[in-house]
Amino acid sequence: MKLYDSAMAPNPRRVRIFLAEKGIEVPTVQIDIGKAENREAPYLAKNPMGGVPMLELDDGTIIAESVAICRYFEQSQPEPALMGVGAQDCALVEMWQRRMELEIASPIMGTFRNTHDFFKGRIPQVPEYGAVLKESAFKRLEWIDSELADRQFVAGDRYTIADITLLVGIDFGRVSKIAIQPDQKNLTRWYDEVSSRPSAKA
Amino acid sequence: MKLYDSAMAPNPRRVRIFLAEKGIEVPTVQIDIGKAENREAPYLAKNPMGGVPMLELDDGTIIAESVAICRYFEQSQPEPALMGVGAQDCALVEMWQRRMELEIASPIMGTFRNTHDFFKGRIPQVPEYGAVLKESAFKRLEWIDSELADRQFVAGDRYTIADITLLVGIDFGRVSKIAIQPDQKNLTRWYDEVSSRPSAKA
Repeated sequence: MKLYDSAMAPNPRRVRIFLAEKGIEVPTVQIDIGKAENREAPYLAKNPMGGVPMLELDDGTIIAESVAICRYFEQSQPEPALMGVGAQDCALVEMWQRRMELEIASPIMGTFRNTHDFFKGRIPQVPEYGAVLKESAFKRLEWIDSELADRQFVAGDRYTIADITLLVGIDFGRVSKIAIQPDQKNLTRWYDEVSSRPSAKA
Repeated sequence: MKLYDSAMAPNPRRVRIFLAEKGIEVPTVQIDIGKAENREAPYLAKNPMGGVPMLELDDGTIIAESVAICRYFEQSQPEPALMGVGAQDCALVEMWQRRMELEIASPIMGTFRNTHDFFKGRIPQVPEYGAVLKESAFKRLEWIDSELADRQFVAGDRYTIADITLLVGIDFGRVSKIAIQPDQKNLTRWYDEVSSRPSAKA
């Protein structure tokens, strides 16, 4: 088994943190996205979307998409549960994971994609749309701050994949100057707590 | 149990098709998104994102996000499996579901959001970004046509949630003039097959 990883990109970090929380070690291959190694033929033959991370199983099966890779490990080694236990809990964790991804992490990554020099010439950038995403991300941070008033973690009283997605999204916000605001006390408390877990260094 | 549904919107249809394939009937409440009922206080109190569909369990628990609602029913009633069986298969179905969503259905819905009069004044539209999404959606239809050359369904030889997401995305493309091209024979064969299933009428 091999995990195609990239140290600087946000999505591979989601999987690294997930694995650290599970206590699972997987050999990694570093992909240099700065040199666009993930846009070259050998990589694209395995993952036509060019996304990082990607997991290659021993039989050659490729699993791409961070959350799908996490699902593989969750079902292979259920403890500690990071994606819920039982129908209702799994659905609620998936709801929160999706909200953290679609409402916060993706807008933050989309701001970067549409405004940062890194993507200049690589994709068609629309800075005006980047500004829309940035404003939306700030609003959603306000919202999740209010949600965290009455519970320890994003999806309830247990750390889950939803916390990982939010943490990675917020940390990646630095490059686009999207950050937790000083009056967001609940979010700050949450951030300090999840950042102090050993997995956050992954 | 109540499913908050909206006949015209694409995401509720994903859940309706999923339920039809499972043979599960759930009482529904119609939400008029044309009148923005999903942006009013009673609905937002249950789902702060205002998204449709939303599932309300008998104990008042709210599950939002189409895929999370599907997960709830998949785990409550595993047969027929629409989200995979076992760690590897579940991960692969999730990979394909996400690819169909992130690479095809979301760009198609995003084209609509950024270019159609329906969203004028409701959200900040960036038509230039809508055009980027539209072009990307056409390219991804080419790609999935090539993927479907060697298999019956999106994630392999069995109908899954990935087929539902692609079908709903493509059908919703009509309003933005995004459609399967005549030379896309594999995709056309797939489309005809999944469209002829009784669930497609849901």
